[in-house]
Amino acid sequence: MMNTQTRRRFLQSAAVATAVSLTQRPVKAATTGQKADLTAKPAFKLGMASYTFRAFPLEQTIEMTARLGLKYIAFKSMHLPLESSDEQIAKVVAKVRQAGLELYGGGVIYMNTADEVNRAFDYAKAAGMKVIIGVPKHDLLGLVDEKVKQFDIKVAIHNHGPGDQLYPTPESAYEKIKGLDKRIGLCIDVGHAQRSGIDPSDPAEKYADRLIDIHIKDVDAATAEGKTIEMGRGVIDIPKLLRTLVKTNYRGVAAFEFEKDEKDTLPGVAESVGFTRGVLATL
Amino acid sequence: MMNTQTRRRFLQSAAVATAVSLTQRPVKAATTGQKADLTAKPAFKLGMASYTFRAFPLEQTIEMTARLGLKYIAFKSMHLPLESSDEQIAKVVAKVRQAGLELYGGGVIYMNTADEVNRAFDYAKAAGMKVIIGVPKHDLLGLVDEKVKQFDIKVAIHNHGPGDQLYPTPESAYEKIKGLDKRIGLCIDVGHAQRSGIDPSDPAEKYADRLIDIHIKDVDAATAEGKTIEMGRGVIDIPKLLRTLVKTNYRGVAAFEFEKDEKDTLPGVAESVGFTRGVLATL
Repeated sequence: MMNTQTRRRFLQSAAVATAVSLTQRPVKAATTGQKADLTAKPAFKLGMASYTFRAFPLEQTIEMTARLGLKYIAFKSMHLPLESSDEQIAKVVAKVRQAGLELYGGGVIYMNTADEVNRAFDYAKAAGMKVIIGVPKHDLLGLVDEKVKQFDIKVAIHNHGPGDQLYPTPESAYEKIKGLDKRIGLCIDVGHAQRSGIDPSDPAEKYADRLIDIHIKDVDAATAEGKTIEMGRGVIDIPKLLRTLVKTNYRGVAAFEFEKDEKDTLPGVAESVGFTRGVLATL
Repeated sequence: MMNTQTRRRFLQSAAVATAVSLTQRPVKAATTGQKADLTAKPAFKLGMASYTFRAFPLEQTIEMTARLGLKYIAFKSMHLPLESSDEQIAKVVAKVRQAGLELYGGGVIYMNTADEVNRAFDYAKAAGMKVIIGVPKHDLLGLVDEKVKQFDIKVAIHNHGPGDQLYPTPESAYEKIKGLDKRIGLCIDVGHAQRSGIDPSDPAEKYADRLIDIHIKDVDAATAEGKTIEMGRGVIDIPKLLRTLVKTNYRGVAAFEFEKDEKDTLPGVAESVGFTRGVLATL
């Protein structure tokens, strides 16, 4: 583990470049009030799951994400419809890039038919996405496996908690995909995991080799009725989770997904971003 | 030092009751997803310096402070004018209480004449404030000393950084008040300290016995030109500062003062609140 000073620099890196450095020790700078010269490579990055801003148009979603100092974003379909033409996709991707952001993924994308699997991969390819955060029906996993090999785009299966018929828990998803291409893995939704009574640090560690994406949040109860709350105010052990991601050398994106305050979302998700950076500053 | 689990509970306490517990170890609960039964007494509390919301009326200032899960607030004069009658003060205090908040202080209050000193104490007494965050002219400190003994209200001298003729640094304030009643002490503004090239953890530790209030924030440069920025994005070593407050058993309020984004303040101060809680969750 790195010392506090180093972690602090690391946090500033996350805030400025939104890329977190876990492997090198930048020059100590806090006591001199100088910003550190940070050249370390990121291990994992903080990002935005655009479902957070589902009540806002694309432009505001991009603007708020940039304001939070986040660089990586995954679009839910309201911000980039699955039916979009390649030209429409290119226009949206250009807007993302102009704001200095990177569209790393799309999701959650439900795939109930072979056509929907095919469309998801064409969509992701046109948008330059590296990851599809997806929920394919079980009998489509063979097709997904073929498409992953064909397109070299990762698929992260998203657990949706109690009541989800397909993938209620990370384990249920892992059991279905463990024999498939390793580019098929998990997007652990830590809120839905905790709502299933699972400390999300456990599957994050157990399935670290297949952890492709993660939705970070907090929930106010560890039951099916649990609802999203500002990170740190709920029941999830966020410091433990972040330590686990560091320990396992997670290299994907930890994406904020904040379901609360749909029409006035920014303050709550900003508090969550701050909380996460605060924890990371001390590790 | 307490372990992580305990700090986590402590954070939840801060979020729920806005009072931080540093002295007892609540029941471990995170792995079971149960909220801890917290009965520990606070050591220091998180609060709001209402100057943050200087562009907003009283009602919104109260509402936003409560939304952030903060209980303690100090009013700047735009939210409770210094010229208010006792009846006007009583009405405002009632609004604060109805929202579940506590008006613990007032400031920054400048005192350039004996009349202004007298008015400040009458005002603070009428509002039930425990602390005046103040800037009395040097030749009025004798009168301030008398009034503190008469009213039993603390006075925390606020440093305002390079360019401040009276109290540019915590040290300059300490030198003026060290021989006075111990209820006269410091409100260290960590941003203005860092702008003076001082790591604010140093005076926080050195003058811990006279630390009455603290304005927490971050700045983007350790020079006179430094401006407020979301906590964790700037140059102040916030984890070190918070560890210092824990180590010295600080028992006052750490009040957020966020000067950025005057007309759209909530997201930035929310990020700062989250950052602070994130750090505290790991100590």
